[in-house]
Amino acid sequence: MSRVADRLAELGIALPEPTYPHSPLDAVVVWGDTARISGQLPRLDGQVTCLGTVGADVTVEAAREAARVSALNALAVLQAELGDLDRIERVLSVMGYVACVPGFTQQADVVDGASVLLHDVFGEAGRHTRCALGVAALPRGSAFELELTVGLRTDSR
Amino acid sequence: MSRVADRLAELGIALPEPTYPHSPLDAVVVWGDTARISGQLPRLDGQVTCLGTVGADVTVEAAREAARVSALNALAVLQAELGDLDRIERVLSVMGYVACVPGFTQQADVVDGASVLLHDVFGEAGRHTRCALGVAALPRGSAFELELTVGLRTDSR
Amino acid sequence: MSRVADRLAELGIALPEPTYPHSPLDAVVVWGDTARISGQLPRLDGQVTCLGTVGADVTVEAAREAARVSALNALAVLQAELGDLDRIERVLSVMGYVACVPGFTQQADVVDGASVLLHDVFGEAGRHTRCALGVAALPRGSAFELELTVGLRTDSR
Repeated sequence: MSRVADRLAELGIALPEPTYPHSPLDAVVVWGDTARISGQLPRLDGQVTCLGTVGADVTVEAAREAARVSALNALAVLQAELGDLDRIERVLSVMGYVACVPGFTQQADVVDGASVLLHDVFGEAGRHTRCALGVAALPRGSAFELELTVGLRTDSR
Repeated sequence: MSRVADRLAELGIALPEPTYPHSPLDAVVVWGDTARISGQLPRLDGQVTCLGTVGADVTVEAAREAARVSALNALAVLQAELGDLDRIERVLSVMGYVACVPGFTQQADVVDGASVLLHDVFGEAGRHTRCALGVAALPRGSAFELELTVGLRTDSR
Repeated sequence: MSRVADRLAELGIALPEPTYPHSPLDAVVVWGDTARISGQLPRLDGQVTCLGTVGADVTVEAAREAARVSALNALAVLQAELGDLDRIERVLSVMGYVACVPGFTQQADVVDGASVLLHDVFGEAGRHTRCALGVAALPRGSAFELELTVGLRTDSR
């Protein structure tokens, strides 16, 4: 059985249904031994769960949970595309975009919601480089958006 | 003859003159089977065509056309660097940055101007992952900036 | 002796102590022949040297120097991870994020602080693609954040 699936079960995590972007976008593109993922919003049952601007009408705690949910959505589309999350050898990088007011300084605390989830699921292979950024506004009014790149196992590696 | 050049002619598209960034920047860097492209603004005849902030003094429609023009500029620098756009096997990813007011939610509608153009030109090979983001401000006051990564054909693939 | 170390000495540059991000982040992840680097702030002696918002309380000149210091921090973590900066064959891309007010247009002048430093140190191999962006706010209140990707020498290249 899949080690990552086992670990998700241990953690009590059920992945959400994957959300596919509209054409001509792909949720995942594999090129060589790398998989890129389209920007993920914090969705449950197709709805964005955290709308607004951090520092105005969204708390750091709510945005951090939104980052965690966005990472679960990333795993859901990877599971659907790859068939098995065990094909992921290493998480490579996370870009975390926080819709926030000017002067907000805790972007790292927010994006940790995604980073810690990835480490919980993949262990040491879940370590990654990261940029945490505060942006003016995000699609659909989401308070958070995640970009993720992962490295895949290949026969030759 | 080049298939992509044929397709551009069918679509009635003439690529703009490529705009080269100042030193020490390169418009395109090829590394292995991947080409990265410096951020492209919506330029025609060297001038940025869409200045301002979406949600304030720029409409969604104008910004969407700016995204399309930015994608044409990306193809122009790729054509100049690669010699032949048929060397592109797959569009990999698009980052679309929209200068917008806080509270603006239609970043995806704007960046679709670039995504649809790439699909029109490359067909299924033009599908890609994407992040659409709303930022505070962009170089030269542009309302839009595009980052594009493409995968190249290689002898060994 | 290392060519890059020689060049740094010629330029009179001593790299700062590398700053490591909190777990589960890595400062550098190598995947194949590419090294990605976590977002670098302008730090000296562990402190962020340039706080605030360009166009409000930070000048273009101060932000440009912050971009240069951020690039030095990127070289410091690469030196620590790779052991020898001569392992870098090519700088590939720079993403420069400037915390700025809406309407600010000189992002390129700011990010040039990083681009020129990389070219000074690596010569032609320091040329790169770039995006310069203006964002709402950055971690710890920094006025600048840098993301860098470099290509590594490999036996097979």
